[in-house]
Formats: sequence, structure tokens, C-alpha cells
Amino acid sequence: MLSVWIVLVSCMDFLLFTSAEEGLEFPSFDGRDRVLNVNERNYKKALKKYDMMCLLYHEPLSSDKELQQQFHMRKMVLELAAQVLEDKDIGFGMVDSHKYAKVAKKLGLEEEGSIYVFKDERVIEFDGELSADTLVEFVLDLLEDPVELISNPMEQRAFERMDEDIRLIGYFKCEESEREWPFCFSFKYVAKQLTLKMNEIDFYEPFMDEPVTIPGKPYSVEEIVDFVNQHRRPTLRKLRAEDMFETWEDDMDGIHIVAFAEEEDPDGYEFLQILKDIARDNTKNPDLSIMWIDPDEFPLLTTYWEKTFKVDLSRPQIGVVNVTDADSVWLNMLNAEALPSAEELEDWIEDVLSGKLPSTPYGSSFQPELVQMPPI
Amino acid sequence: MLSVWIVLVSCMDFLLFTSAEEGLEFPSFDGRDRVLNVNERNYKKALKKYDMMCLLYHEPLSSDKELQQQFHMRKMVLELAAQVLEDKDIGFGMVDSHKYAKVAKKLGLEEEGSIYVFKDERVIEFDGELSADTLVEFVLDLLEDPVELISNPMEQRAFERMDEDIRLIGYFKCEESEREWPFCFSFKYVAKQLTLKMNEIDFYEPFMDEPVTIPGKPYSVEEIVDFVNQHRRPTLRKLRAEDMFETWEDDMDGIHIVAFAEEEDPDGYEFLQILKDIARDNTKNPDLSIMWIDPDEFPLLTTYWEKTFKVDLSRPQIGVVNVTDADSVWLNMLNAEALPSAEELEDWIEDVLSGKLPSTPYGSSFQPELVQMPPI
Repeated sequence: MLSVWIVLVSCMDFLLFTSAEEGLEFPSFDGRDRVLNVNERNYKKALKKYDMMCLLYHEPLSSDKELQQQFHMRKMVLELAAQVLEDKDIGFGMVDSHKYAKVAKKLGLEEEGSIYVFKDERVIEFDGELSADTLVEFVLDLLEDPVELISNPMEQRAFERMDEDIRLIGYFKCEESEREWPFCFSFKYVAKQLTLKMNEIDFYEPFMDEPVTIPGKPYSVEEIVDFVNQHRRPTLRKLRAEDMFETWEDDMDGIHIVAFAEEEDPDGYEFLQILKDIARDNTKNPDLSIMWIDPDEFPLLTTYWEKTFKVDLSRPQIGVVNVTDADSVWLNMLNAEALPSAEELEDWIEDVLSGKLPSTPYGSSFQPELVQMPPI
Repeated sequence: MLSVWIVLVSCMDFLLFTSAEEGLEFPSFDGRDRVLNVNERNYKKALKKYDMMCLLYHEPLSSDKELQQQFHMRKMVLELAAQVLEDKDIGFGMVDSHKYAKVAKKLGLEEEGSIYVFKDERVIEFDGELSADTLVEFVLDLLEDPVELISNPMEQRAFERMDEDIRLIGYFKCEESEREWPFCFSFKYVAKQLTLKMNEIDFYEPFMDEPVTIPGKPYSVEEIVDFVNQHRRPTLRKLRAEDMFETWEDDMDGIHIVAFAEEEDPDGYEFLQILKDIARDNTKNPDLSIMWIDPDEFPLLTTYWEKTFKVDLSRPQIGVVNVTDADSVWLNMLNAEALPSAEELEDWIEDVLSGKLPSTPYGSSFQPELVQMPPI
């Protein structure tokens, strides 16, 4: 993934050194302003003009020079996204939270720094990493049909692999008008494999093999949305660039149980399987939500986390982080070859969450300076 | 993933809106110059000073203002990477290709725009996307031990999942001095599963289930390196940010067979399995190398590719691209639900590569304007 400036850089590489090779040229900002400064006079017209409109709700421009530069950079992210997505009929704008508080209120904008996407009478909030690539990927995904038709075992396997997301699955006679759900199976074989009954919708929590059937069919859209909202916080969730701030803000009374594991690393993969086992055992426990972070996906944060949490992220780690001051306590594993079992890890989490330190921590004792417990 | 400027942006978000939540702060460039301008007087000292030294080999600074700005942005990528990796004892520098041609020659720098990483008497070239996150991820990977110990079925599964990379696997008595290979199995069970014999090394081409045993044991390091270099271009390869330009430059007589498939999309996943079948059937064909691109991983290039190649990337696509002028011809699939079989696709590729257009293209006829064939 990349962002505005890198794009310029990569493009330059290309122009200078590999101009003989075509087909791999990053777009660079062409200098034409496309991002609209939204105000009371133009906002209605703007929303009508495009199939999709993305509005950054932002604090007023500061007099501080550094903040001004950062503001400019943020605008550049929007400009490049607008340029790249121009042919898709997608507009971009910015709403000043002080100057145009009335517009913001009318549009339902609440969190400064978030981008609100208006599409088909719906508003979708983007509270992820504000880079051009993450934003463009998010918007391109919104363009695609949210309903996928699963009609053969291969597509079923693809569905099973998407276990990082919340998934809804219904088994319907697939007429266009009925395609309201994320997945829709028209083939009996697949439905049988998934133990689906006709006209029923199953809810899959992330990383769960076993679904929960949404009660009360036939359903209204509101009932389904309510059910999903009630079950939104999973027992195990992955930190993703597209909604990382939203996820981090959804703490459990000021703390997060954070597990670092590189999925592409044998130890990390093994540790992740243990976490999944724990999550499956505790799926009905509302007090448990483990945040899995794959350091490979956040290379620029890796050394920051290592410094802040005083852990070595080339190995799997699990700990409890206080989000108020980033104070943390970590399970001390003697070495990477000796991962704890699911039971041992479960006991440790339980002890930490219940406010007492484990009397016999796995591996060896805690580092004293880290034993400052977050308030639970 | 992110880059310098986005980092500033994200950080600003954080400072302004979510300062109550700690533990997720992107680093922003602190303004301190760390990147060395390498010259004849300082290069030896610099290489000695750090465990690892990363040198950008670059063209001289242009008088063109836009190019100057792009040059500055590129330097900022290095500065942020240097800042983030400071505690890891990793240095960064830039070598001007004209001013310090002698230094470049001594160090073996050849391709302008590439970064050369010096570590333990070895030089590793980085020819990927020049963004801070891609570069930092690449360098962090180099810090980790290239040899992984596989000692249980779970770790074996992790190994099997890494099928996008070239992998070497040996079965040895694992003493430290013998850990020369990327994977090293000490457990008989795993070795048996992988049909490995003692002291033997197997070579796995990307996406292949069946390995090739490297002939001529006991091996010298040179023999292994030679074997890998001879088998470096796989039948199916994935375009990755970390070496995208290198991969794109490795064309087959001026063309690439390019397949677009989103792995997270049911159709894309299914199409990818077909491609893997073809690759497995043709693994010994030196004239076939399909480049798989997952559009999800290159959001900023998606609309560029759609425009350049005149294809819809929300669906799987396969075509032949002429890298000299980006002219291309694509398989016309009637609809996404009707993917071709491996046999049909193989016939099509064969016809296209042999210079004749398929008489009965799958789905429907080619679009006439695209039928300008690349020279094969």
C-alpha cells in the first residue's frame, strides 16, 4: 500500500529508470484540485452530483505551522484518492467542524478526523488509517456488491477462509429482490455443508467455525442489523488498517488484551491457532475480547510498540494494555519454542483479568517494572 | 501499511482527537537528519558503523523543480525509515551515481533507484515500492533468522501456507553450525510427512505442492545458490510491493501473462485455484510464467490498470501484456459465474503464446481494438 508522496516517488523511479517498461506506473497527483470545501450552499448539490461522496470531517485550520503542513498532507491524501477514483463517479469533500457546524449536524458528522461516505441514502464511517491506499481500498470495496453468491465447494472454501470478518449467510431462492444478505447460497450441497436451512441466516463471528442462527425468521432488515450490532465485538478480533482507530477506541473498561503474532512465521501461526482455540472456547464470554495484531501489517509501528510495551515482536507476545497510559503487563514466555497451551493461556488471561497476578506465571516471573496493573 | 506523510497525518489525527487513547501512535519524522550523503571519504566508516547499512543509489539532483520535490520525498522515506529503525543499529545513506561513481563501482551498485542493503559481507537489493512501510518491513525481515525450525505439525502447516515464496527445506541434525537453510526439520514425523531424507534439501517453487530435490548432496552453498538462481522464475508468481519492479522487469521476451484475481473474493479465489492447477501441470515448461496480481493489494493502481488494459478488475481477468507499450489482449469471459476450466485456460494461453489467436475464444470474441499482438 502507498500514499500520495510515495506515489510521486515511485512514479519518478519509473520515469527515470524504467521508462522502457510499461504497465506499472503509480499515479501521482496531477495538481488539479478536486476536493470540495463543503459549506451550507454547496453540500446538497454535491451529494446529488456523485454516486458516492466522501466527506472528511475536520477541525479548523490551526495557526501552528506544523499542524498546517499536516493538514495539507491530509488534503493531499483526499486529492489523490479523488483523482484515482474520478472515473468511478466518486466525489470528495472536507467539512470544517467549526465553520460549518450546522452542515455537519444535518449530515450527522460526529467524530473529527473521520471520513463519512454517503452512498444510496446510507452513511458509512471510515475511521482507519488516513492514507490514500487504505482509503481507496475501502471505497472500492463499497462499490462492490456486498452480497456474494456461493454456488460451489470452491467458493465455499473461499468463504471459509474469510474468517477475519463478521459474515452473515443465508440460504434463499436467489431472486434479485431477495439478495439482501452478504452471502447467499443457491446450491443445496453448499447449504447442507454449512447446515443451513431455507430462509435462515447464520451469523459467523470472526474466527469461529460454528455459526449462530439469527432467531426469529422471517427477518426484517432492522432485526438483522440489531443482532449484528449486539454481537459486534468478537472474542478474537484482528487490528486492521481500515478501522484501526475505531477498534482501538472500543476498549474494555480502559484495557485491551493484545496478542502479537506474525501469521507467516511458524511460531506466530502456532500461537494464533492457540488464540483461536481460546476464542472458540470462550465465544459466549462477553468480558473477553482479544485483539490480534500481526506486526507484519504495521511495519512502522513495530519499533514503536517494542519501545512502548518493552516486548520483542519478532516472537509471539500476549499482554494487557491500559489504553489511558499504554502501561502494560505481558506473559513472559521462556522461549519461542515453548508456547503455552490454550489452557495455560486461558488461566493466565483469567488471572490477569480478575485483577490478580498469576502466582506461577508461564515461563518465568514478570518483569517487576511492568507489573503496574491497569484498573479492571 | 503507510508512508512518511501519511504517518504525519495519522499522527495528527491522533494528537487532536484521540489523545486519551494510548498505544497506537504512528511515528512522524522528528526533523533530525539521519541519512548520510555517502562519498569517497565516509563510505567505509559508515559500512563499519552499523550492523546493516541501506544505500539508495540515485541519479543526480535535477534542476527541475518537480523532480527536486520528488527527490525530497524519497529522502523523507529514507529519513523516516532511519528514525524508526535507529534502535536496531541500521544506517541509511544515499549515493549520487554521477558524483560518486567510483564509490558506486566499488560497492557494486548498478541500478539507479534501487536500495542496496549491506549486511554481514552480503549485499541484498531492494527493488520494490519505495514507501517507508514497504522498506521498513523488508529490512525488519532481514533482521530475522532466515532459518526456521519446523518441529511440529502446526508449524508444518504454517510452512505449507507460505506458498507464495520460494522455499528450501532440509532435514538435518540441527546443530547451530548446520543451520544454513531456510527451513530445518528436527522431527522425524514432519520430515516423513514432507518425504524428506536426512541431509537432503528440497526446493519448493511458489504454489507447488511437490518439491524438487536438489541433486548432488552433500551440497556446497554455491551449488544451492546456483540451483535457486536457475529455478528463480516460477510458473506462477505473485506481484508483491517488496520486489514489484524487479518482477515486472523480468519479462518473457517483452511480454507478461498477467492474471488479476482477488483472493478474498469467491470468484477470484476460484480463478486462482485454476491458475495454480495450470502452474502445477506446467511446472517444467520454461516458457510459461504467469504473474498473479491481487488488485486488493494495489488499490492505487487498480483504476490505472483498468484504464490502461481496458478491463474490469472487480472480476477475475487474464491477459497478455506487452511491457514496451502496455498494449494487451485479454480473455473475454462471458460472466464471472462462468470461469473457464484449467484445460480451456491452458489452451487459450498456448494459442496466445504461439502467436495465433484462439479460433474459439472462451466466452465470446475478442474486442477488436485489443487484438494487436505483442511480438512473441
